[in-house]
Amino acid sequence: MSTEGKTITCKAAIAWEAGKPLSIEDVEVAPPKDGEVRIKILYTGICHTDDYTLSGKDPEGAFPIILGHEGGGIVESIGAGVDNVKVGDHVVPLYTAECRECKFCKSGKTNLCGRVRATQGKGVMPDGTSRFKCKGKEILHFMGCSTFSQYTVVSKFSVVAVNEKAPLEKACLLGCGITTGYGAATKTPGIEDSNVAVFGIGCVGLSILQGAKAKNAKRIIAIDTNDKKEEWAKKFGATDFINPTKLPEGTSIVDKLVEETDGGLDFTFDATGNVNVMRSALEACHKGWGVCNVIGVAPAGAEIATRPFQLVTGRTWKGSAFGGVKGRTELPGIVDDYLAGTLWVDEFVTHHQPLEGINKGFDDMHAGDCIRCVVNMGFDDAP
Amino acid sequence: MSTEGKTITCKAAIAWEAGKPLSIEDVEVAPPKDGEVRIKILYTGICHTDDYTLSGKDPEGAFPIILGHEGGGIVESIGAGVDNVKVGDHVVPLYTAECRECKFCKSGKTNLCGRVRATQGKGVMPDGTSRFKCKGKEILHFMGCSTFSQYTVVSKFSVVAVNEKAPLEKACLLGCGITTGYGAATKTPGIEDSNVAVFGIGCVGLSILQGAKAKNAKRIIAIDTNDKKEEWAKKFGATDFINPTKLPEGTSIVDKLVEETDGGLDFTFDATGNVNVMRSALEACHKGWGVCNVIGVAPAGAEIATRPFQLVTGRTWKGSAFGGVKGRTELPGIVDDYLAGTLWVDEFVTHHQPLEGINKGFDDMHAGDCIRCVVNMGFDDAP
Repeated sequence: MSTEGKTITCKAAIAWEAGKPLSIEDVEVAPPKDGEVRIKILYTGICHTDDYTLSGKDPEGAFPIILGHEGGGIVESIGAGVDNVKVGDHVVPLYTAECRECKFCKSGKTNLCGRVRATQGKGVMPDGTSRFKCKGKEILHFMGCSTFSQYTVVSKFSVVAVNEKAPLEKACLLGCGITTGYGAATKTPGIEDSNVAVFGIGCVGLSILQGAKAKNAKRIIAIDTNDKKEEWAKKFGATDFINPTKLPEGTSIVDKLVEETDGGLDFTFDATGNVNVMRSALEACHKGWGVCNVIGVAPAGAEIATRPFQLVTGRTWKGSAFGGVKGRTELPGIVDDYLAGTLWVDEFVTHHQPLEGINKGFDDMHAGDCIRCVVNMGFDDAP
Repeated sequence: MSTEGKTITCKAAIAWEAGKPLSIEDVEVAPPKDGEVRIKILYTGICHTDDYTLSGKDPEGAFPIILGHEGGGIVESIGAGVDNVKVGDHVVPLYTAECRECKFCKSGKTNLCGRVRATQGKGVMPDGTSRFKCKGKEILHFMGCSTFSQYTVVSKFSVVAVNEKAPLEKACLLGCGITTGYGAATKTPGIEDSNVAVFGIGCVGLSILQGAKAKNAKRIIAIDTNDKKEEWAKKFGATDFINPTKLPEGTSIVDKLVEETDGGLDFTFDATGNVNVMRSALEACHKGWGVCNVIGVAPAGAEIATRPFQLVTGRTWKGSAFGGVKGRTELPGIVDDYLAGTLWVDEFVTHHQPLEGINKGFDDMHAGDCIRCVVNMGFDDAP
């Protein structure tokens, strides 16, 4: 029996308020309107950004909301005017949309599409309304994705079809962390044959290591305060590992890196979200040409600082979101890299939970031995 | 009578201590050693950096010293192993050396040569000694130039011969401020057809305006708190002028610029040295691609700050010294631009002083109507 055009009642994990566990509820998911796509979500990752918003620390976080933005699913139905995906397509929702028509998309200089940004930030669809209802209340969308629901509705600009050979329980992770890191490294001009340092060896950091390795960086130094990350880092491409808390007294991580690399790094990446680390990542760059790429999301109100002399003497401080990857145009190629074995994804999945155990998944994430916990949304017919 | 190989006694303006006026003295200038060049300085500009060091605020400033780094002169004699200039050449000393052999020069990525940096920073020649003596005391060199002396000695890596058709009383200014601004703009990839904002309309700022105009930037917004600069800015290429102190209450310069340019600037340049302005210059950049180039020298210890979100959403914070120009390789071409009329230099000279009036030249610099004061070193045979 087709569900097309009908409201679907399914399970979703709802965040009713900040700082409280998610609650599994029956949610009503309205059919997609013009330019919208309804997706049956089979798997979703849990990312630190979900946790950050749930914690209430995100000043723009609003409730009640359905979180989740690392999803893999199958198109259930499409609204009028949707021509980039069709029913049955295996898809990944994109929190960084790509309309190909706005000033940003047409600039050729950025992956930050402006088309659905304002409404996405408010937790609604582009027409200003929500497709989710629970207990008579309207529930907000999250990052244009809301993958913590068995069915979700997204803008056609916020979804991409991927190769069906890629298992969605792994490919879902390409919706955020892995792509963010892998894209940031592989899209960095000149990373070949260079010295690279990566601060923070979680999902994003490991993906940067992989990207740097794929691009044949000469030396790849991984930095983390957790010694357990050394094995992970080396497996994913690091040539060196430094625990900055274990340096001799009086030696900063910047001192150590400058000494190790005869003047500093060609490229550094911050995947910690810690503004002090972002400063070290800049100052460990080589005078004259070193580039620091800030990727981590800092706490609200936190600021980065340095002496301007660091810039005047040729260091560059920049950043990227979603690895600089244009989701609709470039994600299919990254899925191909995964299928070809160039990009490891399976190895990131250290923990699993059923939808009912999603709160445990958040606990898993905080354990030092977790890279990613993937939630099975509970469909028996999931491929 | 040749002076080659002999110590020359001549006039120089000596800074005996911080915060005191310069003192015109008889100084003994030793002949150039191997790899060194002795220059008869005919004209010198006075730059804010001279003033900064003289004030005592520069923590690395040491005394007694002969300041000055915007000079024009003629090679009097050369030491062994000097093959890039010859006696009689018209030359400009370079505070940013270019050896063409060090890691920096060979990188192709920066104009910051490492060769004489350490000794230059200490106020001595590469062999660790000074060529200046006065009243039996050794006097320090400044920025590898010391152009406030009728004769000076520099490393062969710190000097470039220029077209003799360029009058040295103007071309001396290419030794710092003008090149710093003009180079920063003309060496910025993609500045053609873009929106540019320049903060601070002094010698450097006006030169950025010229460079942006030479490269056919679409819109060039000049920003200064001094309304008198509007006429100057427009003469040198600005399409718009904004005095940030005259905006309606509650409207910041960032707000105003973002509104004026539909989202922000493609390129901004700070030529103020004020760290708050540097922040505005970054934050006025367009999301996704705007690049802020920090050029001004900030007070010791001052730091720049921003929210890292500014970088993650695609803005780039970088900087440059001496406009990114490789002095020996590229300054002759800039002199040619001057001779061709593409780059105005004569117009910068608003004030003149004889060497005896050099302290008045510092006062001139602080007057709002002064762009550059050029000091005539007092040679009757100056061309």
